[in-house]
Amino acid sequence: MLLQNATVATMVGDRPYGLIENAAIAIEDGLIRWVGPAADLPAEHAGATTEDLGGRLVTPALIDCHTHIVHGGDRAGEFEMRLGGASYEEVARAGGGIVSTVRATRDADEATLLAGALRFADALIAEGASVIEVKSGYGLDIETELRMLRVARRIATLRPVRIVTTFLGAHALPPEMKGRPDAYIDDICLPALEAAAAEGLVDAVDGFCEGIAFDTAQIGRVFDTAKRLGLPVKLHAEQLSHIGGTRLAARYGALSADHVEYANEDDAAAMAEAGSVAVLLPGAFYTLHETQKPPVAAFREHGVPMALATDCNPGSSPMSSLLLSMNMGCTLFGMTPEEALAGVTCHAAKALGLDDCGTIAPGRRADLAIWDAAQPAELAYRIGFNPLYRRIFGGEG
Amino acid sequence: MLLQNATVATMVGDRPYGLIENAAIAIEDGLIRWVGPAADLPAEHAGATTEDLGGRLVTPALIDCHTHIVHGGDRAGEFEMRLGGASYEEVARAGGGIVSTVRATRDADEATLLAGALRFADALIAEGASVIEVKSGYGLDIETELRMLRVARRIATLRPVRIVTTFLGAHALPPEMKGRPDAYIDDICLPALEAAAAEGLVDAVDGFCEGIAFDTAQIGRVFDTAKRLGLPVKLHAEQLSHIGGTRLAARYGALSADHVEYANEDDAAAMAEAGSVAVLLPGAFYTLHETQKPPVAAFREHGVPMALATDCNPGSSPMSSLLLSMNMGCTLFGMTPEEALAGVTCHAAKALGLDDCGTIAPGRRADLAIWDAAQPAELAYRIGFNPLYRRIFGGEG
Ligand SMILES: [Zn+2]
Ligand SMILES: [Zn+2]
Repeated sequence: MLLQNATVATMVGDRPYGLIENAAIAIEDGLIRWVGPAADLPAEHAGATTEDLGGRLVTPALIDCHTHIVHGGDRAGEFEMRLGGASYEEVARAGGGIVSTVRATRDADEATLLAGALRFADALIAEGASVIEVKSGYGLDIETELRMLRVARRIATLRPVRIVTTFLGAHALPPEMKGRPDAYIDDICLPALEAAAAEGLVDAVDGFCEGIAFDTAQIGRVFDTAKRLGLPVKLHAEQLSHIGGTRLAARYGALSADHVEYANEDDAAAMAEAGSVAVLLPGAFYTLHETQKPPVAAFREHGVPMALATDCNPGSSPMSSLLLSMNMGCTLFGMTPEEALAGVTCHAAKALGLDDCGTIAPGRRADLAIWDAAQPAELAYRIGFNPLYRRIFGGEG
Repeated sequence: MLLQNATVATMVGDRPYGLIENAAIAIEDGLIRWVGPAADLPAEHAGATTEDLGGRLVTPALIDCHTHIVHGGDRAGEFEMRLGGASYEEVARAGGGIVSTVRATRDADEATLLAGALRFADALIAEGASVIEVKSGYGLDIETELRMLRVARRIATLRPVRIVTTFLGAHALPPEMKGRPDAYIDDICLPALEAAAAEGLVDAVDGFCEGIAFDTAQIGRVFDTAKRLGLPVKLHAEQLSHIGGTRLAARYGALSADHVEYANEDDAAAMAEAGSVAVLLPGAFYTLHETQKPPVAAFREHGVPMALATDCNPGSSPMSSLLLSMNMGCTLFGMTPEEALAGVTCHAAKALGLDDCGTIAPGRRADLAIWDAAQPAELAYRIGFNPLYRRIFGGEG
């Protein structure tokens, strides 16, 4: 297949967006074979079935590198209670908060969890996503953590999308373990991780390092087990306060540190040194009315790649639009539209440890998003508008 | 047609959302004939073709009561410049700002303007909209103002949607009239209004009352002409400062005062007295990084109905999702999900002077939105997710 008459944001090279005008892309066996100015097209590709894209914009297909799309129930009732004036305490007494999602997830069978997750996967795919990361972390018991990850894997058998799974047993303390976080980590989280890894359900290991969740020592034990199992790590770090999660993650060579609103200059330096990506989650920042912005300038200065993701979850970020994440990254965090596009393509791939996607270059997967747009800045500029014309996934579509 | 097994948010009556569970809706000749608990269905409707909605939520179809979807060009390049660090001056020197949209709109023929507007109309319809208000105001010369309104009218001939037009000649001062706002109002704006009204292109008359636009005396002249032509008025008022636009609008019995971030308690009282709707536009608030929120508590206290709209425009609110307006109304302005739904249904209808839609009640148009949702709060709760199952427009669809 040969795509002709396109404006291609390759996300590779020195030009902004790696942009090539009047470009052609040759695709074979699901891979990109050649991309460049149409005038330079090698003769060997000229005979392929050609599609004229009418000058449309082509970018790498999008990558959502941080989601919690597998979960039971929703928290619309809690949203309504809070806006009606209920305090967090009243919401908690009414059974709200993360505990309600844990309960609903434990109560849901695989089919129910899958049906819920597919709605969000479909919404992301409709915006041109080709890769979705999915975390466990609402089971908080061995059986349910494994069920969540099995459901995540099944998405990829039902939809043309790649799923990258993350074990997040250290997400919150389940109510039955109240006051015993160390026992939870040792007796439930770590055995769940071992069991999930043995079943091939885990691509990476995550935790929530925060005053209201787990401290660095507890997360450190989770990361030690991950290392032993040969699994990469990442961390929900420095979202609500600064307690050292980012530095911990960097020490373990984490793929990414996520949220990181309270990370500082030293953290940025440590992440750069470790090669960790800063995954920014403006949907949660927006929903929680946060005011502390992530240190974008420090990330730039130290060369920390910034990714953007939906953080799609029923509590702090019931958002399922990567395009909106891009707009919020610009409007709320001051990222440039180019940084925003890198954040959902090449840098999101890096945050997932993937090197076969996220850019348009020879040898990469032919995962492309074709847009009814003239220039890449339009993708971050518009709010709540989906200009996707067509998605190509592994050369198909 | 008989819709059965639905949860219906009628937006009428004393219960929250006017909610009826296990409800039925009888539709005939494009109108709602009956709505109520299925158990109470009168025998005369029982024989109709029945559709089982499987417990889905039904609301009035949505109404976007404030948009600028007819315009030339986009401002993605300007968005990118600003995020790259350019000052407003530099953007202006590069030809940015509203002037660039005026230039692009003047340069665009009807077909081009229509194609652009249809993209946004289609996005709104895909979220269940049945009525879209469309303003002129990027022509700022007689010919282009009329062309914009003709394009607006044509949308309704090409799509199953009602279009309500608004003449907004007093939107900004065109560059060729710099320093001569009074001459612009008298020599261009008012003649354009007369010509547009004579052609049947005007359903209401609007203005932008602000330090950077027109003062209350200038807007008053526009309103006087509107009165003489028998046209209702509305106003962009108190968005960036408090200069008396809301009070002026109330004096003219305006349908609505829009934005109104800087309106105060006295303004709220005047609006209540006049029966004006407060149209809140969180997309612009969000995009412009405003911090002054509209006085929601005062509007509640004085019984001023609050509507929500996209303000879809290429500069301050390139947003085309009413569902997102609802979420922003809650998250940014503290509205309840019920106020948000009223804001895009019954109160939006009132803002447009329409009394045949916006609620689900006998005699109203059968303009309905059917959602894959269990409760109405879900509509405002989710971010960037469209749960529309089906839209019914005038009984069809
Ligand atoms: Zn998360
Ligand atoms: Zn406006």
